[in-house]
Amino acid sequence: MGGMSKERIAFIGTGVMGKSMAGHLLNAGYPVSVYNRTKSKTDDLVARGAEWREAPADAAADADVVITIVGFPQDVEETYFGAQGIFQTLESGALVIDMTTSSPLLAKRIAEEASKREIGSLDAPVSGGDMGAREARLSIMVGGEEADFERAKPLFEIMGKNIHLQGPAGSGQHTKMSNQIAIAAGMVSIAESLAYAKASGLDPKRVLKSIESGAAGSWSLSNLAPRALDGNYDPGFAVKHFIKDMGIAIESAEELGLVMPGLKLAKSLYDSVAADGGADDGTHALFRYYFEGNQG
Amino acid sequence: MGGMSKERIAFIGTGVMGKSMAGHLLNAGYPVSVYNRTKSKTDDLVARGAEWREAPADAAADADVVITIVGFPQDVEETYFGAQGIFQTLESGALVIDMTTSSPLLAKRIAEEASKREIGSLDAPVSGGDMGAREARLSIMVGGEEADFERAKPLFEIMGKNIHLQGPAGSGQHTKMSNQIAIAAGMVSIAESLAYAKASGLDPKRVLKSIESGAAGSWSLSNLAPRALDGNYDPGFAVKHFIKDMGIAIESAEELGLVMPGLKLAKSLYDSVAADGGADDGTHALFRYYFEGNQG
Repeated sequence: MGGMSKERIAFIGTGVMGKSMAGHLLNAGYPVSVYNRTKSKTDDLVARGAEWREAPADAAADADVVITIVGFPQDVEETYFGAQGIFQTLESGALVIDMTTSSPLLAKRIAEEASKREIGSLDAPVSGGDMGAREARLSIMVGGEEADFERAKPLFEIMGKNIHLQGPAGSGQHTKMSNQIAIAAGMVSIAESLAYAKASGLDPKRVLKSIESGAAGSWSLSNLAPRALDGNYDPGFAVKHFIKDMGIAIESAEELGLVMPGLKLAKSLYDSVAADGGADDGTHALFRYYFEGNQG
Repeated sequence: MGGMSKERIAFIGTGVMGKSMAGHLLNAGYPVSVYNRTKSKTDDLVARGAEWREAPADAAADADVVITIVGFPQDVEETYFGAQGIFQTLESGALVIDMTTSSPLLAKRIAEEASKREIGSLDAPVSGGDMGAREARLSIMVGGEEADFERAKPLFEIMGKNIHLQGPAGSGQHTKMSNQIAIAAGMVSIAESLAYAKASGLDPKRVLKSIESGAAGSWSLSNLAPRALDGNYDPGFAVKHFIKDMGIAIESAEELGLVMPGLKLAKSLYDSVAADGGADDGTHALFRYYFEGNQG
């Protein structure tokens, strides 16, 4: 590993996010092996020089650094601890980086297991969505040891822009939860603001001109409200993924003894949006839900 | 009125906001008469050339344009319709502009009464706070007739920057309500995000570096969170005024048949902040309320 030659990367999880991220590493000249549950999603990367592997354990067998970005915490658990998991084959001296948005407790369990095997580990979830991944402008929120962070930094800098070590193992996930919590009830407030503007006979786009540059201003208001007002509910970030993240956040908050009425309200409204067929829409489908008068 | 000579302004309500706004009109060379319930709050303006009047009716008697920015809707009602109110003396051809954040229904009542008397009227609440007022950078959200808006525009441009006619009478107030609703549950989400960051052992200021430039970004996160983390709860915008505005918004939403769970949650949390002695603090006192674990 290191030295004059580039670290050998195993990249596990080549969905919308992972595919762009692994592509940037390939472009930067890193040797990359790939595994994904749906093999076809690795085809493009393989055509560009990545090497297909049959399982996480196979990908990890000769890797210096294993990067994972999969679906749910149970997928992360299987990827690391399963019968065909990373820890079956990965050798001491390697580094694992889980970039999935996942449970802080699971991040700590991975770090403990890695430590026993003299493997470095980081939890490093991202924000910035598919566009941030494509444009290599992700925010990367990292938990783990300083030395592992320094080792991973050249890779992070190929995939993202706003990169911070936030604390020990689990801190990347905790930071991502802080991010999602800051968004959650904020989306409710925008939904209610736009619904109010419509119901009171205003032109919501003109209202945005009055309010978006002031104290009501937010990324969501400027970026998602106009899309919803144009009737465009493409994700962006899908409702079903946001629900997953809020679920992890609620669980994690409860473990910390915190009461989160705003987060819980947002989660329950989004559950209804999903139940109404909006699971695959962008998170601004909540605004549509209000426009249609369903929030009662 | 108009022509080569400047319109004579009656300015009623010289609190933190009104004092700065009237001062800008004086600086621009307009003749200004002033009334305020607490007379001493007009002293500075009188020293700078404004003329003191004993009642709204006295101020309005020889005015071309009456500007009001007082406290609560009941104060607006008294100022316009009371025994010493503006409508007792104001002559036809004049223009009234209520810049108080007040009820949209009351704005319509004022417009109807003004119309009967051949007086023009605008509702024109502002956002931007004491600093926006001082620096003449207020957002001004206007409801009323186009001709009245054009007449008032030179005055608005002396006091603010982001000036939009939003629709007929009441539309300025409705826009301001949309603004406050967009803020309300958003403050809850930030409180919960920061409380989570603290409880999970993170450094909340470092968390801000990771999250404020992305999808969680907002004016409140970038401007109010750092103040709260420094233990500075000076207003800004005071809790008691925000509670007033949310009360108007809830009432107005109910009249429109809207269900607003996020707004109601925010209002109930802020009521508790006020009950705990935070009424005069800035709206970011909600974050302290969460830091102290009171949100249960």
